[in-house]
Amino acid sequence: MANRLLAHKGVGRDDVEAAAWWLRDRVVDTPLVRSATLDQIAGVRLWLKAENLQTGGSYKFRGALRAVDQIAKQGGHRGVIAQSTGNHALAVAMAAERYGLTATTVLPVDAPASKVASIEGCGGRVELAGTTAEERLEVVERLRAASGDAVLDAYDHPDVIAGQGSATWELVEEAGRRGTRLDAVVVPVGGGGGVAGACLAVQGSGTAVYGVEPVGCDSLGQSLAAGRRISVPPAPTLADGLRPSLVGRLPFEIVRDRIAGVVRVDDGDIGRAVFLGLFHTKLLLEPSGAAGLAGALRLAASGSFTDIGVVLTGGNAEAAVIARLVAEHGAKGATS
Amino acid sequence: MANRLLAHKGVGRDDVEAAAWWLRDRVVDTPLVRSATLDQIAGVRLWLKAENLQTGGSYKFRGALRAVDQIAKQGGHRGVIAQSTGNHALAVAMAAERYGLTATTVLPVDAPASKVASIEGCGGRVELAGTTAEERLEVVERLRAASGDAVLDAYDHPDVIAGQGSATWELVEEAGRRGTRLDAVVVPVGGGGGVAGACLAVQGSGTAVYGVEPVGCDSLGQSLAAGRRISVPPAPTLADGLRPSLVGRLPFEIVRDRIAGVVRVDDGDIGRAVFLGLFHTKLLLEPSGAAGLAGALRLAASGSFTDIGVVLTGGNAEAAVIARLVAEHGAKGATS
Repeated sequence: MANRLLAHKGVGRDDVEAAAWWLRDRVVDTPLVRSATLDQIAGVRLWLKAENLQTGGSYKFRGALRAVDQIAKQGGHRGVIAQSTGNHALAVAMAAERYGLTATTVLPVDAPASKVASIEGCGGRVELAGTTAEERLEVVERLRAASGDAVLDAYDHPDVIAGQGSATWELVEEAGRRGTRLDAVVVPVGGGGGVAGACLAVQGSGTAVYGVEPVGCDSLGQSLAAGRRISVPPAPTLADGLRPSLVGRLPFEIVRDRIAGVVRVDDGDIGRAVFLGLFHTKLLLEPSGAAGLAGALRLAASGSFTDIGVVLTGGNAEAAVIARLVAEHGAKGATS
Repeated sequence: MANRLLAHKGVGRDDVEAAAWWLRDRVVDTPLVRSATLDQIAGVRLWLKAENLQTGGSYKFRGALRAVDQIAKQGGHRGVIAQSTGNHALAVAMAAERYGLTATTVLPVDAPASKVASIEGCGGRVELAGTTAEERLEVVERLRAASGDAVLDAYDHPDVIAGQGSATWELVEEAGRRGTRLDAVVVPVGGGGGVAGACLAVQGSGTAVYGVEPVGCDSLGQSLAAGRRISVPPAPTLADGLRPSLVGRLPFEIVRDRIAGVVRVDDGDIGRAVFLGLFHTKLLLEPSGAAGLAGALRLAASGSFTDIGVVLTGGNAEAAVIARLVAEHGAKGATS
């Protein structure tokens, strides 16, 4: 209970470290991947945390498991409810399954079919509602009122932020074990939970954190410029996971004074990153999961960095998208 | 020198274990990957050793590094020569680069362009010659006579066998650490070095080893049936790495009394395994590297197994092949 009260007041580096240690034997120990060819292309050394190999295919499982554990420990709930563009909902469904809780998830009507199938595959219920977070949140509220289940926010939640931050914590630690202090860590931004966790994870280490947002989905970038949260109706993007129109309250509080900057990437950058990731690291990344690599390649071009860490956040890609991107970028030449 | 003499007389389980320990800090510690969805499809638990994430994109680097180290220690050679359909040659070029030796490699004229580019990218020289191992071996002999460089056979070599066997050794060890004794390990068969190493690695453990060969490229299967090595002019196959027409002498000596059987897979099986591997493990496998998974799915269908280990041997796939397979199998439904 104390932890819970504390958590609602905020979340700090210690919470990220505690989450990392707690998660150590409960999630996949994802590898830190290097590629000499990618390093050549980037002109820097890239340290790639392969969270596409995480349970549920994305780093969202870290935050979901940490948060569902707290809910289960509190007791009083038969199930959990979560809304997201896909990966957080899937992660919550998988975490709930471990604890014998029901999971009801709300996804946009254009959610990738594979994510819906995966949630149903681990016993979760799926409701499809609209295309914006606001529309999904209305359904969540209706479901909560009817069931009394606990609602697990996708990013505006201290346990979720601490759990997702553990991916960056491990990335920095493992690079350190290999003798490298990272200049920067790059994390894609949807609602901001992952990048907030990253900012906490690196606190005091001298490593800079950069967020990556698709062009036209830059709520964090615009919010940082304005000094307050700005809602951005999401433009179409390959990165379906990075479409939340408004960065979370708590994530914004955390990152506003800690983040080094936001890099904007377009569909061309993202598609190229999916392709390069696939053929040079041998890892399948979904577009949102490759956005960090796309951002890192842009950052690297500035010439200001030597070692850049990237959280490859997820790999739940659609076959049709991958077939198209591989055909398109393959035709341009395998190493471009 | 003693080790070298012993090695030429043969290779045993101790050599595989020694290679595994020696390689531990010198190669990528590749993860053992699980997929609940793949387990459901297979009807068994699959334990997948992701050697597509190995240096050079395949497990061949293990044998190449172990063998090049021995050559470097012996001294007297300025460089090494290797022929293969691609991955062994690339592995030798990368290993030679570490030791400051030159590498001259001989590949078939239809070798994937990406493998040629990768060899040249790490300073190796590439000669293209014919389409069969016999044609390449003629060129190797000419090169050796002219340069005096050491020839490093792709499979008929004790250090190569021991090094490649270390992948299976690690697979069995890691499954054991997670409380599972594997019923079987499945390894794709080209010239037989990997499967020979696997047979040695599991010796005395009760785990059965199965080789996998493409239909029409089943030199090992036919040799086992005949009780002597049988040359098989390779039929066309997606698995370009599994086309050697004749299993090696030493590999055959090792496996003939130790192997549990050979599974034959066709291009449909292999293409499906590439697709399933990509979307359920998030790993890019080249067709030869997915052949083990294809064979494991066939074995699993027999109903005789509970836990099957698979060496996912490599991930150096061509973009055009992947685009085609993903489009083809994606249209059939993502989980089929």
